Amino acid sequence: MSDRKKIAIVGTGLIGGSLALQLNEKGLASTIIGVDSNEAHAKKALELELLDEMADLYSAIAVSDVVILAIPVDTIAQILPSLLDKIDQQILIDLGSTKSALVNSVSLHPKRGRYVAAHPMWGTEYSGPEAAVKGAFENKAVIICNAGDSDTDAVDWTRNMFRKIGMHLLDMRADDHDLHAAYVSHISHITSFALANTVLEKEREDQAIFEMASAGFESTVRLAKSNPAMWVPILMQNRENILDVLNEHISQLRKFKSCLEKENAEYLKELMDDANRIRRILK
Amino acid sequence: MSDRKKIAIVGTGLIGGSLALQLNEKGLASTIIGVDSNEAHAKKALELELLDEMADLYSAIAVSDVVILAIPVDTIAQILPSLLDKIDQQILIDLGSTKSALVNSVSLHPKRGRYVAAHPMWGTEYSGPEAAVKGAFENKAVIICNAGDSDTDAVDWTRNMFRKIGMHLLDMRADDHDLHAAYVSHISHITSFALANTVLEKEREDQAIFEMASAGFESTVRLAKSNPAMWVPILMQNRENILDVLNEHISQLRKFKSCLEKENAEYLKELMDDANRIRRILK
Repeated sequence: MSDRKKIAIVGTGLIGGSLALQLNEKGLASTIIGVDSNEAHAKKALELELLDEMADLYSAIAVSDVVILAIPVDTIAQILPSLLDKIDQQILIDLGSTKSALVNSVSLHPKRGRYVAAHPMWGTEYSGPEAAVKGAFENKAVIICNAGDSDTDAVDWTRNMFRKIGMHLLDMRADDHDLHAAYVSHISHITSFALANTVLEKEREDQAIFEMASAGFESTVRLAKSNPAMWVPILMQNRENILDVLNEHISQLRKFKSCLEKENAEYLKELMDDANRIRRILK
Repeated sequence: MSDRKKIAIVGTGLIGGSLALQLNEKGLASTIIGVDSNEAHAKKALELELLDEMADLYSAIAVSDVVILAIPVDTIAQILPSLLDKIDQQILIDLGSTKSALVNSVSLHPKRGRYVAAHPMWGTEYSGPEAAVKGAFENKAVIICNAGDSDTDAVDWTRNMFRKIGMHLLDMRADDHDLHAAYVSHISHITSFALANTVLEKEREDQAIFEMASAGFESTVRLAKSNPAMWVPILMQNRENILDVLNEHISQLRKFKSCLEKENAEYLKELMDDANRIRRILK
């Protein structure tokens, strides 16, 4: 892959903007064309020189070698079949945080092979072109789903691209991905949103929160700043897996509640000892 | 306060060890005497040169100008009255994460004035002398509780000491402190512990967690590595406030659950918009 590609990035926010910076940095693109239905974002993305030019969706597809979707997963699900209709030999990659609904929506599409379903495990709680950062994605995992359904050249180029921007590759079935993602990403967002609402609901003294808030609090609640336009569709598309995890999480919280109600310090310690086993997994 | 003090630090782990480093760094101590009932910790603290020498508790008190307690809050509650019995003109400071039970345990003690109840809002999820870090506490808040019950010289020295290690001072009633701490620190630990247990309980594929775990997941779950010997007593001593917050948190989580069950994207968005208001408080 010595040749640089003409790459269209649909969605010039946090993910699309950061990817554009990396593609440029690593010399993977001859031109990057941005597509964004939000005019303010489009303007900002150009201003920040995240991309070379802006175009409308179908013009961008027509002139690009690679089209990358970095937009909310409900929009991806809506437009993916009709986008594939317009694809000739281009590679179409999506970066959505859910995968089953997307691959299912085009599983029988005659152009299915041109599509690669990917989920780079990187993000921040910020959004929009201003949230784009240099060096994003590096040393993070990217999951390619149902790679066997993609054409070899398409999946090879995609893997190589992710490798060059510093990611390590994992292969997974889309349904396995969605189950795991519910555990290692989606539930964390729900607990953060709910924790923010808990504190905002009950703690009337903003100043006290602001002044006392520890690094620990910030760490557990920062995802509550995440963009609803991105997260509502993720949770809705992966609702069944997430409901399983959420039910389990509520029952785990009830154990802590019961310990406190019954002043059962011994069981409380046991629960914390159990939780400490996360050290085995997270360094 | 140009004169350096002979300072005893009881508990040479994360908090005591880190404070010792700062006291030395800022030239506040002529000698730092460590006290630790855990022999391995005592040995390690000396090895790491966190302190100058080790002594037993009452010998250390006898020869020190200032005694600082950096031990679990249940032990502080147990020994505080008898420690004050041994205090002459020394200043006795505790750094515990709960404050009501502690100040109440000595409110009528004839030496109450020598005691300053403080809570520096700094910590990490690690513990023991090896967890001590340089530059700890800087730019964080420290709360002095019921300062009016402490002698002026004692509380002045304490404030000055915290200021010199880079902290900003807040004054609060102990019961207000415990209420706010339930929101901005204690509940975060419970949600992290419970989230770790949720994932460890249901997600059988450690390797998947390990490889996929995003920064977001790490951020929400890292406090689950915290030391039960420190956290069981905190939660037990502040159980009534924490139970209030925990009940609210579970009911907030149930709202997310209900949205997913009923596929109510509109209400889900509303919940996230509400949570986004945390931006107002956390930069």
